[in-house]
Amino acid sequence: MTHHVDFETAPERYRHWTLQVEGEIAQLSLDVAEDGGLVPGYELKMNSYDLGVDIELYDAVQRLRFTHPEVRAVVLTSAKDRNFCAGANIRMLAGSPHAWKVNFCKFTNETRNGIEDATANSGQTWIAAVNGTAAGGGYELALACEKILLIDDNSSAVSLPEVPLLGVLPGTGGLTRVTDKRRVRKDRADWFATRAEGVRGKQAVEWRLVDEVIPKRTWAETVRERAAQAAAGSSRPGPGATGVELPPLGPTVDDDGLRYRHVTARFDRAAGLVEVTVHGPTGDVPETVERVHELGADFWPLAMTRELDDLILRLRTNEPELGTWVVRTKGDVEDALAFERVIARHSGEDWLVNEIRHYFKRTLKRLDVTSRSLIALIEPGSCFAGALLELALACDRQYMLDGFFEDTVEGEEGEPAQIVLSASNFGTFPMANGLSRLESRLYGDDDHLAKLRQETDRRIDAREALELGLVTDAPDDIDWEDEVRIMLEERASLSPDALTGMEANLRFVGPETMESRIFARLTAWQNWIFVRPNASGEEGALRRYGTGQRPAYDKKRV
Amino acid sequence: MTHHVDFETAPERYRHWTLQVEGEIAQLSLDVAEDGGLVPGYELKMNSYDLGVDIELYDAVQRLRFTHPEVRAVVLTSAKDRNFCAGANIRMLAGSPHAWKVNFCKFTNETRNGIEDATANSGQTWIAAVNGTAAGGGYELALACEKILLIDDNSSAVSLPEVPLLGVLPGTGGLTRVTDKRRVRKDRADWFATRAEGVRGKQAVEWRLVDEVIPKRTWAETVRERAAQAAAGSSRPGPGATGVELPPLGPTVDDDGLRYRHVTARFDRAAGLVEVTVHGPTGDVPETVERVHELGADFWPLAMTRELDDLILRLRTNEPELGTWVVRTKGDVEDALAFERVIARHSGEDWLVNEIRHYFKRTLKRLDVTSRSLIALIEPGSCFAGALLELALACDRQYMLDGFFEDTVEGEEGEPAQIVLSASNFGTFPMANGLSRLESRLYGDDDHLAKLRQETDRRIDAREALELGLVTDAPDDIDWEDEVRIMLEERASLSPDALTGMEANLRFVGPETMESRIFARLTAWQNWIFVRPNASGEEGALRRYGTGQRPAYDKKRV
Repeated sequence: MTHHVDFETAPERYRHWTLQVEGEIAQLSLDVAEDGGLVPGYELKMNSYDLGVDIELYDAVQRLRFTHPEVRAVVLTSAKDRNFCAGANIRMLAGSPHAWKVNFCKFTNETRNGIEDATANSGQTWIAAVNGTAAGGGYELALACEKILLIDDNSSAVSLPEVPLLGVLPGTGGLTRVTDKRRVRKDRADWFATRAEGVRGKQAVEWRLVDEVIPKRTWAETVRERAAQAAAGSSRPGPGATGVELPPLGPTVDDDGLRYRHVTARFDRAAGLVEVTVHGPTGDVPETVERVHELGADFWPLAMTRELDDLILRLRTNEPELGTWVVRTKGDVEDALAFERVIARHSGEDWLVNEIRHYFKRTLKRLDVTSRSLIALIEPGSCFAGALLELALACDRQYMLDGFFEDTVEGEEGEPAQIVLSASNFGTFPMANGLSRLESRLYGDDDHLAKLRQETDRRIDAREALELGLVTDAPDDIDWEDEVRIMLEERASLSPDALTGMEANLRFVGPETMESRIFARLTAWQNWIFVRPNASGEEGALRRYGTGQRPAYDKKRV
Repeated sequence: MTHHVDFETAPERYRHWTLQVEGEIAQLSLDVAEDGGLVPGYELKMNSYDLGVDIELYDAVQRLRFTHPEVRAVVLTSAKDRNFCAGANIRMLAGSPHAWKVNFCKFTNETRNGIEDATANSGQTWIAAVNGTAAGGGYELALACEKILLIDDNSSAVSLPEVPLLGVLPGTGGLTRVTDKRRVRKDRADWFATRAEGVRGKQAVEWRLVDEVIPKRTWAETVRERAAQAAAGSSRPGPGATGVELPPLGPTVDDDGLRYRHVTARFDRAAGLVEVTVHGPTGDVPETVERVHELGADFWPLAMTRELDDLILRLRTNEPELGTWVVRTKGDVEDALAFERVIARHSGEDWLVNEIRHYFKRTLKRLDVTSRSLIALIEPGSCFAGALLELALACDRQYMLDGFFEDTVEGEEGEPAQIVLSASNFGTFPMANGLSRLESRLYGDDDHLAKLRQETDRRIDAREALELGLVTDAPDDIDWEDEVRIMLEERASLSPDALTGMEANLRFVGPETMESRIFARLTAWQNWIFVRPNASGEEGALRRYGTGQRPAYDKKRV
């Protein structure tokens, strides 16, 4: 399964979804092509999904936000009769290596969080019109929506049959969302999650598993009504607004790396690392919001974010052996800040600028849950300023050169490495735990944080950055090369699993939210269960599912 | 490793610790007997520990709270030269089955949480006098203390070398406590946790890894001073107060179960379950606090809690294949409430009653993190009232008989099953997430919770309990036997791993605290890492440690 996965698609190429927009309502219908699996070896029966199906869903979520400002409510439904969605394909899961399963679950979780983010931050309310049985990941997809409507046809049920049928957990937030979001009583959640056949009708409403059960004959009409009601309360521009097209990114991909317009990644396979460079903006700063709309996908913050997002997804899936990402920026500090000011000034009032802000936020969150060591190198010519400084703060460590590289030609030194704090480092791009990256970094040290608020909008050099606690170390040219090299070599020598666990703990300090709990308590347990023989062994439940043989469990509790 | 572990001990039998009490200061010194391992196959070198060493530590923690009300500060130190504690013994870990490692970590975590609980709730401040190197679990032991003093001898360091040396995480809260409790900046924590040699001297203070570095020549004197300072601010009774002896519980243990005075456990190996019965109080309710002190360990709430605590520990360690615990109570509802009122009335003013309250709280917390399915059966003759109702609420499900069993002799029915809510169900015994069990059960449903507050101190029968959301189901005699039997059979047929993960998610809804994060984010990741070949395989770091051979890692990130 060393399939090289491309995350780019577009509605006209969808094999599994149909996106229809009518005025302020969009309908996204799942109709999985059985023979459309991303990888050979399984058929996508019963509207079950694999990574390929979810890549299309993610694309739809993105386009609804950027290309469809008129859409205020999204109806998520199925084009198949009596079958909403059966969740992740079991044969695919059973046949996949552990790392593939975990990465797949991470992406699907991020997409579902993105659906909730659209409801919360774009006035685009998602409604699950569950017109057939929603099982496992199918029900979890519905759980990511704001409202769940269930058809009352005496057979359609919602269920989380993973524990009884597959010996694993509902892996896309199901256990967390039933209690924390839908407030299902936990003993009922326990019952529900061990009952393969699920719950339907009135009981599903009473237990809060769905919001409403609707008779078949009034189904279509009621769904339309609920969508119209949701749309009515939206702050989204609505009909008349013009969206932004998202053309293909089409990076150059070869054995040495990936190159986009603003983002490049160079592989160093011997060292087990990727050198990621984000290039800052060039050219004129748009003076008006109208100009931002004209630029559309060419507006640097959006273009750069799309590229970075795509890069993260490709590297996570296609380059699992490159365990360290070295992150640099290149560009002019003032230009970076000028573009950032456009975002800061207009994100409250303009839907597109608001979308860009939240998209950069979501992309940073992807970095936060990426199981790679992230090291920021802050060198002369870099532009870690304001929003771009978040890239460095998302890293596990930050190294900043004090002074110049020795081999710099005299008279051409330019400026030494400098960083700039701005207002956007104090809450514009929160992490999943609800804290800004600075709050996480200085957790509980409010005085320090208050001091940093006084240090915004000016250039901070390496020594001062070190004193202010903004970088891990600030070697000068004499030490830089050795220190960085040894640090990267050491990192590459450590257990990848231990690093993944360590980083997952240290990146998220302090409080947890429903979203962070999904990646922590739920996902970490699921990762453990996925590698246990009771699930993935020869006689385990995942492998035996559908064979007619019952799984053989080691009954010992751990 | 099917060693039958006994968790009872006493200071005069300690092989690894010395407990010295002088006035209001206690000193607990670690001096591990190399040949004193609980299980054959390893030597406890360098003050490293196994479960046996930690059982003694737990005993000391308990006796300091109950037998030593005069002790206001506890100095935790080492009796070995230049060696505070090397953490969990690596050979023991490398040679242990996965389940043993996980259960061992759970107990050590609970004991360290208990140390913090003593500081927080008993005015007994623990101070780590780190008079030699504290590595891994050794430093984590210090992290559980309120203050960490480090000797400045040019060699003694604190370190978390698990990631670089063993390919696993610091498994006893280390990663969580450095950031969340000690507020070490997370990039520094990353550096620290990958640096095998650790940090010493001034840097350790600057990074907040320790509170103070003290020269060798003033060491003893300064430690005494710091202990005296901590004691000075304590609310603990201090010298003059008389403690309560904790005599051996000595349960009857045989193949069929365990029997204590107030708690019994009957094994049903065919069904894979244990029937736990807690017997309510009998005899006179103490009318005064003085009488409670006279009764001491015979005072029912303390006696019952000690037995329940010991039972949980034995079952978890010795009976891993009994995956379901069926929990019943037997006794008089009024008597249970009368005893509970003694606790409610005096826990604010009397140290012993306060200790009993917090001990029952800690024992319930042990249930919460126990990886067994917990099912409460509420039958006629039970006494799930007030504090004892917490036992039912700690369970995954609650079944309550509506009416009487058919075979009850007419005229001898007595009362049907009834439960009683009391004030103590609303915060007296919080879970690790900071919520009461009712708040967890009805998470986010404040109106429901407010309604329940109006329903305290009266008997609630099965139908009403069902309506009030206090039980999962309330079958009558016609359905009871089948429903309970089928439910228990179904439970026993499910994957033990999936159940463990599901229960660990559903029991803790909503917010997380440092304590719950240790059991969730940290421990769940550690469990995953423990089963990975990079740690536990033939060529993994745990197995290769100390052999001179370097581990061979699969470099793929997951």
